[in-house]
Amino acid sequence: MRLSRFHLATVKEVPADAEIASHRLMLRAGMIRKLAAGIYTWSPLGLRVLRKVEAIVREEMNRAGALEMLMPSIQPRELWEETGRWQKFGGQLLKIKDRKEQEFCFGPTHEEVITDFARHEIKSYKQLPVNFYQIQTKFRDEIRPRFGIMRAREFLMKDAYSFHLTETSLQETYRVMYETYARIFTRLGLEFRAVQADTGAIGGHASHEFQVLAEAGEDVIAFSDASDYAANLEMAEAAPPATPRPAPAATLERVATPAQKTIEDIAAFLKVPATRCVKTLLVRGRDGLVALCLRGDHALNEVKAGKLPELAGEVTLASEEEIRAVTGAGPGFIGPVGLPAEIPVIVDRDAAVLADFVCGGNADGTHYVGANWDRDATIRRIADIRSVVEGDRAPDGRGTLHLARGIEVGHIFQLGSRYAEAMGASVQDETGQQRTLLMGCYGIGVSRIVAAAIEQRHDEAGIVWPEPMAPWQVAVCPINPKGLGEVSAAAESLYQELCARGIETVLDDRGLRPGAMFADLELIGIPHRVVVSERGLAAGTLEYRRRDESQSQALDRETLLARLAGNVPG
Amino acid sequence: MRLSRFHLATVKEVPADAEIASHRLMLRAGMIRKLAAGIYTWSPLGLRVLRKVEAIVREEMNRAGALEMLMPSIQPRELWEETGRWQKFGGQLLKIKDRKEQEFCFGPTHEEVITDFARHEIKSYKQLPVNFYQIQTKFRDEIRPRFGIMRAREFLMKDAYSFHLTETSLQETYRVMYETYARIFTRLGLEFRAVQADTGAIGGHASHEFQVLAEAGEDVIAFSDASDYAANLEMAEAAPPATPRPAPAATLERVATPAQKTIEDIAAFLKVPATRCVKTLLVRGRDGLVALCLRGDHALNEVKAGKLPELAGEVTLASEEEIRAVTGAGPGFIGPVGLPAEIPVIVDRDAAVLADFVCGGNADGTHYVGANWDRDATIRRIADIRSVVEGDRAPDGRGTLHLARGIEVGHIFQLGSRYAEAMGASVQDETGQQRTLLMGCYGIGVSRIVAAAIEQRHDEAGIVWPEPMAPWQVAVCPINPKGLGEVSAAAESLYQELCARGIETVLDDRGLRPGAMFADLELIGIPHRVVVSERGLAAGTLEYRRRDESQSQALDRETLLARLAGNVPG
Repeated sequence: MRLSRFHLATVKEVPADAEIASHRLMLRAGMIRKLAAGIYTWSPLGLRVLRKVEAIVREEMNRAGALEMLMPSIQPRELWEETGRWQKFGGQLLKIKDRKEQEFCFGPTHEEVITDFARHEIKSYKQLPVNFYQIQTKFRDEIRPRFGIMRAREFLMKDAYSFHLTETSLQETYRVMYETYARIFTRLGLEFRAVQADTGAIGGHASHEFQVLAEAGEDVIAFSDASDYAANLEMAEAAPPATPRPAPAATLERVATPAQKTIEDIAAFLKVPATRCVKTLLVRGRDGLVALCLRGDHALNEVKAGKLPELAGEVTLASEEEIRAVTGAGPGFIGPVGLPAEIPVIVDRDAAVLADFVCGGNADGTHYVGANWDRDATIRRIADIRSVVEGDRAPDGRGTLHLARGIEVGHIFQLGSRYAEAMGASVQDETGQQRTLLMGCYGIGVSRIVAAAIEQRHDEAGIVWPEPMAPWQVAVCPINPKGLGEVSAAAESLYQELCARGIETVLDDRGLRPGAMFADLELIGIPHRVVVSERGLAAGTLEYRRRDESQSQALDRETLLARLAGNVPG
Repeated sequence: MRLSRFHLATVKEVPADAEIASHRLMLRAGMIRKLAAGIYTWSPLGLRVLRKVEAIVREEMNRAGALEMLMPSIQPRELWEETGRWQKFGGQLLKIKDRKEQEFCFGPTHEEVITDFARHEIKSYKQLPVNFYQIQTKFRDEIRPRFGIMRAREFLMKDAYSFHLTETSLQETYRVMYETYARIFTRLGLEFRAVQADTGAIGGHASHEFQVLAEAGEDVIAFSDASDYAANLEMAEAAPPATPRPAPAATLERVATPAQKTIEDIAAFLKVPATRCVKTLLVRGRDGLVALCLRGDHALNEVKAGKLPELAGEVTLASEEEIRAVTGAGPGFIGPVGLPAEIPVIVDRDAAVLADFVCGGNADGTHYVGANWDRDATIRRIADIRSVVEGDRAPDGRGTLHLARGIEVGHIFQLGSRYAEAMGASVQDETGQQRTLLMGCYGIGVSRIVAAAIEQRHDEAGIVWPEPMAPWQVAVCPINPKGLGEVSAAAESLYQELCARGIETVLDDRGLRPGAMFADLELIGIPHRVVVSERGLAAGTLEYRRRDESQSQALDRETLLARLAGNVPG
């Protein structure tokens, strides 16, 4: 491509509401333009990158035997009523009435449509397993769209849906999709982790998220440095304590701690490390209040705690009034010793191995020191209810956990029979009996990947594309203020040669000054730059620089061509 | 592709509302499935064909230097208010409110969005000309969606928009797009005509439609058998009469024609051919009634007549009351002789060269014979206001006109400044002055092409794809009721060989009986079929048949491979 025939429109100023690097850089590079809140036009430059991602996703889905199809964007209300999601999906569902007052939505996802397709088209177990996918524009009416295309309302998604007769078959396709996703993100050149995820509102048995690691990510993930263990922080299991609880050595004593409410206050005041304190939270359970006890330096993990049988799915802290009503003390002074017997005490595994610990005195301005489980306080249940922290042992016993922020770009689910049952999608098995279909679903945020890649790979000058996502691999830049024929001819010849070798090349023939030209090409992140100048030609060299290196190299033409042919995907 | 791993779901019965062949065959082949009125899912088989069309459109648009981008589906009301189309577009515009009660539409076309893009991104004449395009799902809320995807509400469209400083530049790009469209439809293997079209509601100067010829088409086009002249019937010019008007020979006489109202009645009653009669229509003009006179065997062309200065855009017949009020006679007895002087008489060119003709007597139950222009009736204006008929001379003077039905699959327009002016899109020219952008727009109905191709090419057994649109080029069919290893092995080896040669091949390994297998493959229109059977193998031959031929040929493997390699796009 000759840049003079392309529409490249970089800009200097970006709106103040562009809070994160990818949003700012996509606007500055002119990849996207905002049409309305959370709704963007992809310019020719932006679309080149988006299509690179789309092509790799498609190739790998096809390789995995999935069949591409295309479902409508506009879906009738009746289908969504069958699964109850017309109401349950909430405000993100963009509802529409047509000229005949029929109700529709702009599909935010396609479980209903594909299940309707399957119940009509799949009659026999012989047609199974099958995995359908599409790459399509979706709309979710985010209440607060922001971060550019990272959380846009209109976005491009790859969604796949597999159907099965047996759990074994579902698990097999799930495994193939897991491997396919890993191959996709590896090919895209991104650093990512596949993490165990909470299935949340979509439900089902197993679920993994694919997270691109980046500081701007909204999710925190925990991963081992010595195994492939990785999980969302909300799901990550804490390894059980390595040592048992010591025997009590101290006597229980109540001490005055008049103004000390936080663990840090208490630890400093009593000169005890936070790791020797127990903090107690009173939460609302199925049958009245429940006490949750954690080691002082640990934080409650609400997802894990929400699964306790005493709680029923959600962690809600008791109000100060509720707490005073049963303990007589305020929230900063609660502890497991001497709590009313009707309040069950649930203790995190790391808090349960403490002896001679500090805890609240259940009277304002007091704490206990030298407290011990069993002797002084009754444990109803020991459970893993804390969030893991940097440096914890990995729960699979291999290595140490680290925490990082990630951007969710893929999500795979074993949905089981949920949609098929609601919509009556069944097939005849080998014995002629009707059996409800089992289903998996597999999503990739195609447009979000573009933003996630920029979050992971950028510097002050702009975007640093991984090669497989770059709009072009090589930029040829003639420095030609005097309009010399030989500089233009050498640049043209190099451009032709690179194109002939199948290397995606852009020739910057716009006639800009070098500073403006280089700034543009660094901003838009072209991986390889070759400068053709009068001085270089006199010395028989071209000036080569990688986008991710700070030094240029003077290379002769043959060395340069060999270098690019070796480095660059053909 | 092995069919056992594909989702092929042909059906026997199709709904009674499938009125045309393409709708029936697409349903029977399982290419599409209806989700709601005018809203269809494309199955893996259907999508393969759709993507073939899309790829050819994209390749040719890129070759023409157009730049692909992607605009949003969801467009804000404000933009459409700027051009007045929020109201004017009518009921086809699907209007939407988001959760904040902001108003949007699902884009049926993108003139507003691209002009908004241009007014922000194009600042200087140096960025011109530029031609942006996208291939995208559109929605038009048709009041009566029917004919399957031929007139669906949700459909896939290629829309392109070019911007220019000068008319010359606009015309140059228009010419390139005309040639590009011709190349696209030629590559697709379709018989088509590029016809001059009425610009209708979109407005602008020049406009051509690309029509695929097919009996089921809703448009009638006229084309020459000796030149590339072609036009929509509504636009086709009638060649001027070849001979001048003879001098009057007969005397004017009023005769009684008591019950004869139609031209056919009069001609039979008076024993005069219809070509010697003049029929007169009274229509409402700018300033009272206007008489339009045509030769008896010709029909009024309302589009051409609508452009008369006396009429102002629309042809509306006067009511019988209006006619009686000014003439005293009923509609069947009106003629140019003796009409009140305030009624201008406009005469079609072919009626104006008649002498001694028959016309209405302006009194019930009477006609004139021996009437002559000038002597007996005053002509206000001679104009081309009739529709052409089969056998007319072509208006370019070369050849004879034929009429055919066509399906509109492409449309190109020179829009001029209409949108740019309404939305304030201008650039600086060489002298630093702001000038309004000029614009062209170029649409292709990508999904409609699939249906149009089927209308043009099908038989009783099913679809007969042109090779460039076929889901696969070759089907390999093992006839193997005894499960012979050698038949399977020979089929497998041929399949592998064809794939290795880059020929898109499907192996029908479903184990069906020959009749069912052949019926499926003919229905879905695979251009080349190769049958591998025990008997053929014994004779050292394979049975080859083209979809569009009725005879099979027994060929040895090498001859077959050479034949397929020569015939089939690689």
